[in-house]
Amino acid sequence: MINFTVGPVQSSDAVRAIGAEQVPYFRTAEFSSIMLENESLVKKFAHTTEDSRVVFMTCSGSGGMETAIMNCLTKEDKALVINGGSFGERFVELLTLHGIPFSEIKLQHGKALRPEHLAPYEGKGYSAFLLQKHETSTGVHFDIKLVSDFCKRNGCFLIVDTISTFLADPFDMAALDAGVMITGSQKALACPPGIAIIALAPSALKRIEKSKCCCQYFDLKLALKNQDRGQTPWTPAVGVLRQINVRLKEIDASGGDTAEIARTAHLAEYFRRKLKEYNLPFEIISDSLSNALTPLHPTTQSAHQIFLKIKDEYGMWICPNGGDMKDTVFRVGHIGYLNETDYDRLIEAFIDLKEKNFI
Amino acid sequence: MINFTVGPVQSSDAVRAIGAEQVPYFRTAEFSSIMLENESLVKKFAHTTEDSRVVFMTCSGSGGMETAIMNCLTKEDKALVINGGSFGERFVELLTLHGIPFSEIKLQHGKALRPEHLAPYEGKGYSAFLLQKHETSTGVHFDIKLVSDFCKRNGCFLIVDTISTFLADPFDMAALDAGVMITGSQKALACPPGIAIIALAPSALKRIEKSKCCCQYFDLKLALKNQDRGQTPWTPAVGVLRQINVRLKEIDASGGDTAEIARTAHLAEYFRRKLKEYNLPFEIISDSLSNALTPLHPTTQSAHQIFLKIKDEYGMWICPNGGDMKDTVFRVGHIGYLNETDYDRLIEAFIDLKEKNFI
Repeated sequence: MINFTVGPVQSSDAVRAIGAEQVPYFRTAEFSSIMLENESLVKKFAHTTEDSRVVFMTCSGSGGMETAIMNCLTKEDKALVINGGSFGERFVELLTLHGIPFSEIKLQHGKALRPEHLAPYEGKGYSAFLLQKHETSTGVHFDIKLVSDFCKRNGCFLIVDTISTFLADPFDMAALDAGVMITGSQKALACPPGIAIIALAPSALKRIEKSKCCCQYFDLKLALKNQDRGQTPWTPAVGVLRQINVRLKEIDASGGDTAEIARTAHLAEYFRRKLKEYNLPFEIISDSLSNALTPLHPTTQSAHQIFLKIKDEYGMWICPNGGDMKDTVFRVGHIGYLNETDYDRLIEAFIDLKEKNFI
Repeated sequence: MINFTVGPVQSSDAVRAIGAEQVPYFRTAEFSSIMLENESLVKKFAHTTEDSRVVFMTCSGSGGMETAIMNCLTKEDKALVINGGSFGERFVELLTLHGIPFSEIKLQHGKALRPEHLAPYEGKGYSAFLLQKHETSTGVHFDIKLVSDFCKRNGCFLIVDTISTFLADPFDMAALDAGVMITGSQKALACPPGIAIIALAPSALKRIEKSKCCCQYFDLKLALKNQDRGQTPWTPAVGVLRQINVRLKEIDASGGDTAEIARTAHLAEYFRRKLKEYNLPFEIISDSLSNALTPLHPTTQSAHQIFLKIKDEYGMWICPNGGDMKDTVFRVGHIGYLNETDYDRLIEAFIDLKEKNFI
């Protein structure tokens, strides 16, 4: 099977080799040094300030999103949230559950964020801003500079979900003055799922210091205190953390985040060029693309039927959508251990389906 | 390295082979069938009633403990909790954080639970009971029948942490009328850490139905609704769940939980017999042992120094203790992919240390 979804994605041979090893005992100096190295490399690739911190939580990216909200926001905040798809909707649900007052900027699926969307909220006393840098459900890559500038003008604490865009598109946490960045092990980091990674600027650390988290497992005060010595309060997904270590070092040795982003951008362009070249009956539904994925609306067949066909008859996974996009949108990912030949095979499958009048 | 800790423990070759594979996309019928099979086999080995359910949460065992409390108990409960070590203490912390009224039965480290400990609480209106079936920090295997009988007489909802004892010592959830059983992937299940497994009796399902969980990630209503179709609300540790599947089928094919428990009991007896045979300067500190581990107090050297020596000079991990037991107690586990020869090597190392007057 070739995996073109956006997580879990394909891993390198070095990462898979670690998966085959016995998982070591972890309350040791050896494991601590791996964890401290992981922290340091994530800081490097996220371009954080020196006094920022990174913690590794054993949970999904959604767990990371909730952790950020529970530890960094309070009922005294007034938050602004971009809701451009399923993941924006999740932020809305979480803010509601945790009783954080908020306003929601609801964007049409596939549409970019523009200055006029933010204008009405200027100078209205907002203290926090939450968004997906890349709304993975619809493949819209939001203009983070626009949001960052708004936050700087308005004194907003900025929480950025970069789950599917970290290492796929440029991100400079310090320059953007973001307070929190959230990502996951199974996206461009190309490791098995199980770990959410949260980078915390000093502004976040100050908020965490004062907060009282309603959930012990997700208490960032405990996570930070343990990460001081390269440990975690609870038994973490040790195997995945070791794979993250190998992968971060792999990226570091190959030119860092810049080279990894360029590699992904190249694959995305390659695939999009081929789509046009063969005049496939798919429309790109996003007007602001990330390198991480291409969201497509098939004009001649149900998206879900195409997903099933490609899985069952061609041995490849493209990424299906759920809910009301189930039949109208599928996505093709460009993160993970993929190359041009893989895309050639996918394009061939599409051409075959077109010749058979399936699409 | 040979791993004698109590988690992560050593995995079988079949489990490790899965670790080497690419992690597949999981919103598929194929992954759903794995998840439903996992549920069914855990029910079988935990001896649940037919109408019980099992969910798989991507978190540590401690996350599982907190999930049980958040979803099954309320401020209207009056809970009784056994605190016999670090994990009992964790239950106490969690009940405190979540505002569940409770009384604590604090036991001396290493001491068994006896009827006189429970007598004062008889007929006092307790509605819930929480305990570790095996307090892993001190290796005390509590008399679960005693607790179950108390719960039946007093109408208590019983939450049992079986994290380190599931598949190592007998457990019959239906006969004990337990409401919740919690375990983890990295103990006797011998898979990498990352998944907590929670079995829920109908009494628990009824409580969950009425509860409002303060954390979306740990909301069992969402987990149960998704598990109906073999899925999870958030991206789970797909790799570990596939390893759990292979391992559960391995156990099923080798005689089920009874055979696995007998295998572990045999290794525990083998090691304990050798300890005596060679007159090693260690005292067993628990007066009620589990098959899962042997907790030892070394009489001639710091426990932590022995842990470091065995790790650095003999290539083996024994399990260190933390806090005020750091220098007085270490533990030797009997769960995971171990055999008699492994214990021979450990005993040889101890003999060597004795000859060198280190212990």
